[in-house]
Formats: sequence, structure tokens, C-alpha cells
Amino acid sequence: MKAGIVGLGKMGKNLALNMMDNGHDVVAYNRTPKKVKNIEEKGAEGAYSLEGLVEKLSPPRVIWVMVPAGDPVHDIITRLSSLLKTGDVIVDGGNSHFKKTLERDQMLGDKGIELVDAGTSGGVTGARHGACMMVGASEDIYEYLEPLIDDITVEDGCIHTGTTGSGHFVKMVHNGIEYGMLEAIGEGFEVLEASDFDLNFEDIARVWNNGSVIESWLIELTKNVFEDRGNLEDIKPVIDSSGEGKWTVEEAIDLGLSVPVLAEALMVRYSTQQDENFGAKLIAALRNQFGGHDVENK
Amino acid sequence: MKAGIVGLGKMGKNLALNMMDNGHDVVAYNRTPKKVKNIEEKGAEGAYSLEGLVEKLSPPRVIWVMVPAGDPVHDIITRLSSLLKTGDVIVDGGNSHFKKTLERDQMLGDKGIELVDAGTSGGVTGARHGACMMVGASEDIYEYLEPLIDDITVEDGCIHTGTTGSGHFVKMVHNGIEYGMLEAIGEGFEVLEASDFDLNFEDIARVWNNGSVIESWLIELTKNVFEDRGNLEDIKPVIDSSGEGKWTVEEAIDLGLSVPVLAEALMVRYSTQQDENFGAKLIAALRNQFGGHDVENK
Amino acid sequence: MKAGIVGLGKMGKNLALNMMDNGHDVVAYNRTPKKVKNIEEKGAEGAYSLEGLVEKLSPPRVIWVMVPAGDPVHDIITRLSSLLKTGDVIVDGGNSHFKKTLERDQMLGDKGIELVDAGTSGGVTGARHGACMMVGASEDIYEYLEPLIDDITVEDGCIHTGTTGSGHFVKMVHNGIEYGMLEAIGEGFEVLEASDFDLNFEDIARVWNNGSVIESWLIELTKNVFEDRGNLEDIKPVIDSSGEGKWTVEEAIDLGLSVPVLAEALMVRYSTQQDENFGAKLIAALRNQFGGHDVENK
Amino acid sequence: MKAGIVGLGKMGKNLALNMMDNGHDVVAYNRTPKKVKNIEEKGAEGAYSLEGLVEKLSPPRVIWVMVPAGDPVHDIITRLSSLLKTGDVIVDGGNSHFKKTLERDQMLGDKGIELVDAGTSGGVTGARHGACMMVGASEDIYEYLEPLIDDITVEDGCIHTGTTGSGHFVKMVHNGIEYGMLEAIGEGFEVLEASDFDLNFEDIARVWNNGSVIESWLIELTKNVFEDRGNLEDIKPVIDSSGEGKWTVEEAIDLGLSVPVLAEALMVRYSTQQDENFGAKLIAALRNQFGGHDVENK
Repeated sequence: MKAGIVGLGKMGKNLALNMMDNGHDVVAYNRTPKKVKNIEEKGAEGAYSLEGLVEKLSPPRVIWVMVPAGDPVHDIITRLSSLLKTGDVIVDGGNSHFKKTLERDQMLGDKGIELVDAGTSGGVTGARHGACMMVGASEDIYEYLEPLIDDITVEDGCIHTGTTGSGHFVKMVHNGIEYGMLEAIGEGFEVLEASDFDLNFEDIARVWNNGSVIESWLIELTKNVFEDRGNLEDIKPVIDSSGEGKWTVEEAIDLGLSVPVLAEALMVRYSTQQDENFGAKLIAALRNQFGGHDVENK
Repeated sequence: MKAGIVGLGKMGKNLALNMMDNGHDVVAYNRTPKKVKNIEEKGAEGAYSLEGLVEKLSPPRVIWVMVPAGDPVHDIITRLSSLLKTGDVIVDGGNSHFKKTLERDQMLGDKGIELVDAGTSGGVTGARHGACMMVGASEDIYEYLEPLIDDITVEDGCIHTGTTGSGHFVKMVHNGIEYGMLEAIGEGFEVLEASDFDLNFEDIARVWNNGSVIESWLIELTKNVFEDRGNLEDIKPVIDSSGEGKWTVEEAIDLGLSVPVLAEALMVRYSTQQDENFGAKLIAALRNQFGGHDVENK
Repeated sequence: MKAGIVGLGKMGKNLALNMMDNGHDVVAYNRTPKKVKNIEEKGAEGAYSLEGLVEKLSPPRVIWVMVPAGDPVHDIITRLSSLLKTGDVIVDGGNSHFKKTLERDQMLGDKGIELVDAGTSGGVTGARHGACMMVGASEDIYEYLEPLIDDITVEDGCIHTGTTGSGHFVKMVHNGIEYGMLEAIGEGFEVLEASDFDLNFEDIARVWNNGSVIESWLIELTKNVFEDRGNLEDIKPVIDSSGEGKWTVEEAIDLGLSVPVLAEALMVRYSTQQDENFGAKLIAALRNQFGGHDVENK
Repeated sequence: MKAGIVGLGKMGKNLALNMMDNGHDVVAYNRTPKKVKNIEEKGAEGAYSLEGLVEKLSPPRVIWVMVPAGDPVHDIITRLSSLLKTGDVIVDGGNSHFKKTLERDQMLGDKGIELVDAGTSGGVTGARHGACMMVGASEDIYEYLEPLIDDITVEDGCIHTGTTGSGHFVKMVHNGIEYGMLEAIGEGFEVLEASDFDLNFEDIARVWNNGSVIESWLIELTKNVFEDRGNLEDIKPVIDSSGEGKWTVEEAIDLGLSVPVLAEALMVRYSTQQDENFGAKLIAALRNQFGGHDVENK
């Protein structure tokens, strides 16, 4: 298959290489031309404008968009909507909010353009050597794309989740679970670290990844972290977040579901990002008011 | 009634003054003599040893112990247990763990000494002008102490909760609720503070304390805090904790009860006390491992 | 002052009576005419259509809307927007989302109609005899309404929180705090109820409301509940929610704030509303898979 | 090596078979003789009393105890302490609390008997074909046991965590993490189940287990659960708990650590086990008191 790729960041570039390894032809476009040059050297056909990219593909075109969620992807899809024709296919391989995907599908559908949402997990290595994909699309379109998707994902690692939007939805929940798992692991090592026993975290993570109930890729990576970074002393205890964990909690709240662990995992991230806890200052001052407890001053 | 008081800290001193205001005779002992001197000037009879205190009271003696929970109160009660006689009464007015109180009651009961646990709320002002008390004691002993307890508490502000231990138990749960309420207030003002509206926190707290559903002493104190300390900029966001919130959660866990809000209120305090979040550092490093997300270095 | 009132439910009717007690003239409209009849008997001027209501007031008109948040209030405000003139004032006294209020203010502003948001606390009794109000409005308009608002609120119980929208925002956060406080109280009594001590909940609540740190209207009501309903055996453990607690958590998540106690208080409500916990079923089945633990079947 | 095994339940029997598969000689004892008979048929030497078991082994004896934590294991270790001699080794392969293990180690140490704590994960299949073990022991004793432990664990699946007690400690934290991971998965599927998309949970779990960030044994088992039990309609949403998740939270609270996700995972289990939520009933009644909100009656 011949596919266009928009966005040659960490994920897009590796996905492009992955496609080519599997015998597909790739036309690649990126906002900054340097990355296009680089991928041309690896065998892709370069495009230096979105219009150029569209011209180098024949209908029904498949254009895989791998740019950051939010404004960037919205901008690309909007521009593509006026360049593409009925029957062409846009794949949004990023982490768009599924409700945005539903809105864009509506907008593109009016023009006969197909939108496919391919939630992608497995990180950069996955993009390069076999990702895990959750794909929302109509039956026909999924069938059409299946040979390509099958090739770039690991065995048993892709699913047609349902209609457009469902891929991003399932990927969103996947990340919500990831937040909870990560926080559980973090808290566990917090307890290990505070104990009087003299423990080797790297060895513990290695063993937990062989035959234990919590055996998982995240535990394997935990072993790698301790291997690479020792006791973590150089790292700031700040956990960023990219959106899907938040969206999962928001969606749960909207659906009236109780998801305390997913919510707490998000709250902990926010508290690590916070400059200063105003509420905590107030409570410290209140304890002083009623009990005469000392307040620590700066 | 003539009562002995052991411990002339913030709480003990004010309770002594409160008793004297209400016509009771007080014999007061404190580890450091200076505080005994001070209270003598206010009309109390001073004692400069525990033995001296006991001698200045006649059976059945009532000795109100107002020293910090833990080792201090344990030490005083142990020493009193060999100085007192059958029928004498020790009142533990501090925040002992109710299970410790049950153990001490057992120990004292073997010698015929009565233990009364008087969980006390209302802070320093309450101790001085009318406290709120939850008292565990046998029927007889409560009846014997009632005139004294009635006098030093506010109207409708004392309760015989049941047998010895129940006073500290009810007081413990009271403080558990206090933790939850304080955290709710702190989080609420956190949201107010982060909004784009230009709000006056002192005025908001004042109004919330007049006719709203959350009207409460804590909201009144919130108003006072903003009045006294402006935007809290000098306060460190560290919330100490003295034990009962922790015990309430521990007791709930032991009883198999779900108390998420009380548990979270405790967790937040711990997180504000923490030097560095090891778990957060691990999660930041893990996100880098699988997604190439940046890690902030120190 | 002469004011129109739209909506004669529990809150609207009592507010109307409250206004009349304070010497204001009230023109009252309600969708079902029966409630209009009733209030006419109490001295109000009745209106049997929104148009009628508007006609019976002279510019600059003040119309206090006291209908449920969501579609009902949106419908009324939309209809009023085509009946009113520049300089007229709509007061939304319900619990609208502050972002909706900002949108409506924009819409009404284009026509020169003023929108005031009066977040109201204190329940039905408050509406009748003195409410607590958080009012968002421009300076001029607040000044114009102040004599009316002062009369129908308790002393020190009204605040001009800032520009339009801020009243509903502050009221929203108030309710968020209320959720947290309620849950803290509920969990505390859960612990009391599970203990081996033989406790009198009504007496405990009474005493906690006299001089303790958690003294509050909610604790007073707790006493009333036990007085009225004994051990609560007839009550289903289902806690409904009307929106603001949810919005507070959503707003916090949007602002990137950690509000674990407000979030948990919401989650607990959702879990009590849930027919069946699908996640719990999955976990029960998983424990069986890896550990052979029994699964309870229906 | 020749080893004694006490306890032939699911775990003990499979561990015995595992040892024999690897060429070790096993003397097996169980309270009920029938299970001894069964294992004799598989090649083990049977013992019909604890004394008999001890006699059939020569010093330094190795006795692997695989009975439930709490009273059963305490009883066996106490009885063995008077049957064994200096230099003999007891392995506690169950989930004892590490503080109990430290106490027992003290008691046995006085008699020169060695205690080894082998926290074991991997469930029944692990016990049979290769477990994951976290072992606390002195250096000498671990070296002595290593050939046996190596044989019955999977590759890279055993660790000498440190001195006695550390094995159970690390296993405890492992289970704490497991609680958090399970709850994260449960909540995630709760969100999937509530959505309007028509999703295939079994396929989603399968795909998540191939190349995604949350790839793990628990996700593999999730797939199995949906394969075996369809939409879970026959399962009661009650999650039991065996102790270590609780102990992890208790230990964290004792160490002053914030572990909100581990705590919530425990709270959710408790709430599923609860007959009736007294706190929720109180809150429902309180909402009626202040807002006139309906209370659902039974």
C-alpha cells in the first residue's frame, strides 16, 4: 500500500520506517523540511507541503496523521478536508479526545472523507518495530486498511474497536489504566524505600517481572529505570500528564461512575506539578487558630 | 469539688482557671515549677511533686491529667497508680488512643483505681471558657464528676459516652471528621484561589458563616485566618498531624470500613510533610522509558 | 422595591414570602397556575404568563428566576431575553453552572439586559427567613439590588462576589466543600456505628455542636436526623447529587488542581447510585484466575 | 536436597510436586491424612504427624511451611520450635505479616533455629511450574537453600531480599501494588462498559496484552476472564481481600507515607464487602434536612 504520513516526530518517523520495512510506500510530510530530508534518505518519498503530499498519492488516498493532539491535529485535518476528495481516508494516529474525533468525523463525513482513529500504544519502540493499535473505523475502511495495520503492529496487537471514535476512546481508557498502574507501582516503591530493610530495587523489579502476579512491561521498565538511574537522586519528583488520564476521569464523572483510583492517580500528578498548595497553607493556619499548633513560616 | 491537675500547658492551665472560675478548688502540679508558681498567683494550690499533689487531696481523689498523649501520659498514670488508693479517680483529659486507655483501665482497675477518659474539644479558648467533652466512665464515677464537668463545659457540651475508653474513641472520630472537613475547606479555597475571578476570601468566609449549609466554627476561623494573614504568603504549605486522624483511619481499616475521605485527608497531610516523593520520581523516569517524555532534572 | 419572581417551587415561594415580609412588592409567575393562586392569597400579585409578568413591572424591571438549573432556567432566560428591554435585570437565583451564566450574560449583554447570578444557600428555611447569598453582578446593578438582597438575607449573609458569573462560581465551590464535609461526617458515624461501644449518636451530635471544633449547621442537622429517624433503618443508602459537587471537581481537574477529598466525596455518591459495579465483578473474577480465590455467584 | 513440607493445600501440594520434578526428595505432612496419601502416590514420603515429619529428616533439616497466615502458621511454627534443633531451618512460604515474622525469628533464634520467609507469587500455576519468590534469610542459610529455591522458581524469578522478614515485606508491597493495578483495570473496564460504543472486552484485553504500555499478566488474565465468563453477569460484585493490601496501607500510614491509590483500592474492596453503608444513609437523610431532597425509603 502507498500511504502518506504527516508529522515526522518520534512517533511519525518510526511509524514511517516501520511501514517501509514492511514493504509499503511512504510519502512523508513534516512542517520543518529537515525531517523530510532525513526520511528521504531512508527511502521515503518526501513532500514539502500538504498539497504536495496529496498530489503524490492516488485516490482513495490514505493519509496517516501523526501530530500532537489538540490544535496541531485539528489544523492538519481541517486543511486536509479541503484538499482531499470523497473516498479518501485520514487516519488520526495521535491521542485526540474521542469527542473531538466524533466532531471531525461529522465534518469530514459531510465531504465524503473517511476518518479513522488509530489509538497507538507501545511507545517509540512500538511505533518502530510493532505497535499496539486500537482502531475506530467503518467496516469497509478497516478492511481496506487492515493489510497495512496488520504489518505495522505486533501479532494480535491490533483491534477494530468499532465505529469511528471508538479507537481513541479505548486508547483513552488504556491510558487511564496506565495512570493507575504507574501510581500503584510508584507508591509501592515509596513504601519499599522508606523501610528499614536494605533492599535492592533493581533486583526486586527484575524478580517481580518473572512469574509474579504483577509481571508487566511497566515492571520491566521499572527494573531498567533503577539500572540506568540508580537511586533516582537526580530526578525531580514532578509527573507531567498528557491528557488521556484526565479525560478518562472526566468521562467517568460524566457517566456517573466511581473511579477513585484513576482519579487519585491524576490528583497525585497535579499535586506534583503544583508550585504551592494554597489549601495546605490555609489548613496549617486553621490548625493554629483552633489549637495553637505551630505554623511553619517561610 | 477539689481536684488535682497534672500538666499546666496551654490546655491544663486554662482548664485549671476554668475550674476555679466555677468555684472549684484546684491543686496543680507541673514538671517545671515555674508554671506552678504562675498558677498559684491565680489562686490555685501548688504542688511541686506528684506525691505532694496526692497528699494535698483527700480520698476519693480526683486527678485530672492534662499532658501530651503517648509516653508523658503513660508515665504520669503509671506513677499515679502506685500513689493512689482504691476509689481514687484519674481523668485522662488528653488525646490518648482509646486502646491504650482500655489497657490502662485494666491495669488501674486491678488496684481499684478508676480511670475516666475525657476527650476534650474546643481548643484553648474552650478549655478556658467552656469546653466540649466526651467522657468515658462507669455510671457511678460519671455521676460523681458531673458537677465539675458540667461547670467547665459549655451548655449541652458534655456527654457521658459510655464505659471507659469510649470518650477517647468518640473524640478520635471527632478529629477524624475534623481532618476531612479541614481538607474539604482547604480544597475549596484552592479552587477559589485558582479562578480568574477576583475574589475576597475573607468576605466569602464571613458570608459562608451566616446562613449557608457549611456554616461552622471552621469557616468562622477561616475568615479569621484571612483577616489576620492576608493571602497566606508567609505560611509554609505543611500540615502537621497529631495522631487522631491517623488512628481513625487505622481503626476504620481494622473494622473493614471504607472511609475514603478521611483516608485522603490524612494522605494529603503526609504528602505535605514529605521531603521528596520517591514514587513520583520513579513514575517520571518510567514515563521517559516508555514514551520518551522529558524528565526534569535537579 | 417591586420584583418579579419566576418559579414558585420550594425555594421560589419562600423567597417571595420573604420579600413580602420585608415590605417589597412581588409579582409572581409559575408554569402551573395553582401555585400562582396560592401566592396571591398570601399577598402577591399573580401573573399567568411570562408576558403578563413583564407587563406588570416597570423599567428597569427586576425579575428573580428561581427554577431548576439546566433546561428550565435556560428556557426562561431565553424567553425573557425577547420580552425585556435595555436596563432590565434578570436574577438567576438557582444553581446554574457559572460557565453557562457567562454565556447567557454575553447573550443578554448584547441586548442591554443585565444578568445577575445569586447563588443561594441555607435551604428552604433560609429562603423563607434569611438566606445566604453570593451575588455576581456589575457594581451599578448590585448597588441597585442591594436593598432587596440585604432584606432577604441574614445579617452578614450576602456578598457581592464580583462580576457576573462569580456568584454561581463561589456557590459551586461552597457546595463542593459541602460534599466533602458531609462525606467526612458520614464516614465518622460509620466508624462510630461499627464500634463495640454502645453509643448514642443523637447525643454525640448534640455535644459536637456545642463547643467542639466541628461545630456546624451540618452537625446540628445530624442531631436532628437521629432524633427524627432513629437508627436510619428505613433509609436506602443512596446519595443523590445535583451537580455542583461534580462541577467543582470538573473545574479543579480543568485547572490542574489536586482535590482528592472533593473527588472522593463525589465518587462515593456515584458508587451508592450504581446498580452494579462491573469493575468489582471483573476483579473478583481475576482473583479467581490467578489465586483460585472463590467468586461469589448470584 | 531433602525437604519437609507442612501443608498440602493448593499451594503446598503444587510446591511439593514442583520440588520432586526437580529431583528433590520431599517428606510431606498435612493435618488431614487424605492429602498425605495423595501425595505419597505421586512419589513423596508421607508423614502423619509433625513429629514423624521431623524424624524423617536429618539435621540440618529444612521444613517448608505452606499453611494459611495467622493462627495456622503460628501454631505450626510454635510446635516445630520444640521439635527442631539448632541449625534446622523453617521456611515460612505463606503470607505472614513481616512483623510477625520478625517476632518469630526472635523466638526461634533463641533456640538456634533459622527462620526463612519466602514470599511467593505466581499463584497455583507458579507453585507447580515455577514460582516467583522473595526470600528473607541470613546469607549462609540462603546459600544453603539456593539450589532448592532456584529449581522451583522461574528463571530470574527469585531474590534474596535481605535479612529475615524482608521477604514477607517485599511480598506484602507486591500485593499492595497488585491491589492498585487490579483496581485500575477494574475501573477502566467500568468506563468501557458504560460507554455507548459497542465494544468487545475480550478482544480489547487481548490486544492490550500485545505491545501496549499496560501489557501484563493481569491483562492476559482479564482476557481469560471475558473468554470464560462472558459479560460477568453471574458474578457478585464483591471483592475479598486476604490481608497484604491492608498491611501495605497500614505500614504506609505508620511510616507517614502518602499512598492514595493503594488506600483507595483497599477502600473499594471494603465498600463491596459492606452490607449497608450507614454513612450514606446519614448523608441521604441530611440532604433531606437542609435541602428537602427526597430520601429513598426501603
